[in-house]
Amino acid sequence: MIRFSKAVNSLRSSEIRDLMGLATRPDIISFAGGMPGNELFPVEDIDEIYNNLELDLKRTAFQYGPTPGYPPLLESLKEYLNKKGMPVNNNKLMITTGSLQAINILAKVFIDPGDTVVTENPCFIGAISAFKSYQANLAGINLDEDGIDIQSLKAFLKKYKSVPPKFIYITPYFHNPAGTLYTEQRKKELILVLKEHGLLLVEDDAYGELYFDEDVRKRVMPMKALYENELTICYTGTFSKILGPGFRLGWMLVPPDIYQKAELVKQSMDACSPNFTQVLANEFLRSGRMEKYILKMREVYRKRKDITAAAIRKYFPPEVTWTEPQGGFYIWLKLPPRIDIMAVLKSSIEKGAVFVIGRTFDPEGRDNSHFRLAYSHTPEDKIEKGIQILGGCLNEALKSLK
Amino acid sequence: MIRFSKAVNSLRSSEIRDLMGLATRPDIISFAGGMPGNELFPVEDIDEIYNNLELDLKRTAFQYGPTPGYPPLLESLKEYLNKKGMPVNNNKLMITTGSLQAINILAKVFIDPGDTVVTENPCFIGAISAFKSYQANLAGINLDEDGIDIQSLKAFLKKYKSVPPKFIYITPYFHNPAGTLYTEQRKKELILVLKEHGLLLVEDDAYGELYFDEDVRKRVMPMKALYENELTICYTGTFSKILGPGFRLGWMLVPPDIYQKAELVKQSMDACSPNFTQVLANEFLRSGRMEKYILKMREVYRKRKDITAAAIRKYFPPEVTWTEPQGGFYIWLKLPPRIDIMAVLKSSIEKGAVFVIGRTFDPEGRDNSHFRLAYSHTPEDKIEKGIQILGGCLNEALKSLK
Repeated sequence: MIRFSKAVNSLRSSEIRDLMGLATRPDIISFAGGMPGNELFPVEDIDEIYNNLELDLKRTAFQYGPTPGYPPLLESLKEYLNKKGMPVNNNKLMITTGSLQAINILAKVFIDPGDTVVTENPCFIGAISAFKSYQANLAGINLDEDGIDIQSLKAFLKKYKSVPPKFIYITPYFHNPAGTLYTEQRKKELILVLKEHGLLLVEDDAYGELYFDEDVRKRVMPMKALYENELTICYTGTFSKILGPGFRLGWMLVPPDIYQKAELVKQSMDACSPNFTQVLANEFLRSGRMEKYILKMREVYRKRKDITAAAIRKYFPPEVTWTEPQGGFYIWLKLPPRIDIMAVLKSSIEKGAVFVIGRTFDPEGRDNSHFRLAYSHTPEDKIEKGIQILGGCLNEALKSLK
Repeated sequence: MIRFSKAVNSLRSSEIRDLMGLATRPDIISFAGGMPGNELFPVEDIDEIYNNLELDLKRTAFQYGPTPGYPPLLESLKEYLNKKGMPVNNNKLMITTGSLQAINILAKVFIDPGDTVVTENPCFIGAISAFKSYQANLAGINLDEDGIDIQSLKAFLKKYKSVPPKFIYITPYFHNPAGTLYTEQRKKELILVLKEHGLLLVEDDAYGELYFDEDVRKRVMPMKALYENELTICYTGTFSKILGPGFRLGWMLVPPDIYQKAELVKQSMDACSPNFTQVLANEFLRSGRMEKYILKMREVYRKRKDITAAAIRKYFPPEVTWTEPQGGFYIWLKLPPRIDIMAVLKSSIEKGAVFVIGRTFDPEGRDNSHFRLAYSHTPEDKIEKGIQILGGCLNEALKSLK
């Protein structure tokens, strides 16, 4: 007789896989998956790097590496983060199998069954499933245009003062799915609240490099850099959006005592991240190719956002509201009341366009009034057509209400 | 204030990392790490494969893939396992980030804190740490030359009939660290006991391909193939020993209901294994290169085993007993009473050779009378010298007892 664990019985659906499936159907214009377009990857750079690797280095790439990461990559990344102003010397850096693994490891380091974790609502689905897999109770605090809603957060923390959450998890830079970029003011207010409650912060910075204009550059400065001395902050990042998700490389920058526990967890999870892709990523980073690639990607994604935004203005009913993102992959849209988003999704898929409904990103699985468009992997010449299809479906749904 | 989880507080040491560190010091002859020698990797094959990949396929390699694995690799591997006689049609195959991740995922699928897991004693350290990380109690049952000790297993299961273990984890083919290859008789006896107790079997087959002589070929036939209809068996395998650990690719072959849970867990762990190395591994497998490589590796490892065995006979005191392995990477040796193995290890490292003490592989951390030699990554021309150094230290330790 098979007896599953309580932890795994608390995991229900397979939404990430479903998303991926929809996003890659060739006959459909996809705004679903949160991934770079296949045609954007720096294939030539990696070809060049691979073919110039010395035999010894290639052999190293085939071998196990140390659990915390391939040492030259750790060095290059440390230097890169240091240049960005990150406190690399008081903290320890670890390479993980995607930043989802970093989040999962931190979840394991902190969460006991029944513990509360505070997130934003909406929230990255990978983090939701990681936290749930350790039987956490998720408390989703609403986001507004400037960041997490401070009043709601304060009210929540006050109400549950006797059973304080283990940590708060946020994505302040071009949030997935909300696209939000925190204001400096909001970050300051957040830090004050977290300090008051002694609450540990997990800061997910998967998209911060992909800002569209130099004038928001200051706002993507991580809280880990700004408020290191005020609060314990675990910072996570990834190569998925600035090299390729198929490399499965992310990282965490955390205080030494947390690092020590995280290393034990990683050892028991996969022993080490792929040395093969770490060797390549190190050369990509160390040769300065990554910085050049990021510069190019900022332009590409800004253009895709511009085309998407223009098409939305042209084809969507004005009752659908949204904020133009200043970086990242996503536009988050709010529906007028009484629209059945599942019906819109079905008719849109029939007509040839796909997106993701908001409920997917709600820690409590209730949201029925939002949806997410990812423009990152949609070819420029297909965006308008896709938005037009979806706009038609939205207009129909609105008409049928009248 | 940082409050770690109970699960992570139950993880104590960092032995895997320490091993890796010792194994890669250039000034020392290492019999420590359980890895292929760097010079053995099929670098030219992968060069050829990489440089012949179509652009579209390279782009796929940079992208996310489905959680259960890159579909063409799943197909090729299914075919490969089918040829070996594995029941691929009644089960589901999943690619994991090394087979350690497969073991970790299964641990998460089944273990609640306080559950008992039966293992062999000694046991693969990765599995020990994975099970402990979910707060399992480990019950290590002794191995003899033919496999797990059936009388001890029966006695244990009888004694704890009211709180049955969640599963039993074994490595029947060239066990790490014990080198043991189960006899067919022992497998039959084991199945009878497990059936009687309805105990789920996790069968780890990391080394089965690496037998030294055709006449043991029958004995590496997995229990998953032989006894599929008798018992629920979760089977794990890996590319680490037949391509390269740096690819971080393993797999599990499990019944559909277990697969469904395992997929949810993997989604929350790292979303998918590296597509980059999956694309390469698929071509390696599909082109028939893997089978050729395995043929070659059987010869290489047999030769290293022969040299090691001959040197042991020449230099080790006869009081140190061991069995010659018929495949795999390891020789497991038993010390006479009262030898301080830690002192031997220290003096051996000082003199330039390193190995792993038995306690590392004891689920309960007590064994003081064994040590493991891995000959898999030791260059042929250094084996004798290394064994001579270690033999000297063992002789000295014995002498000092008299």
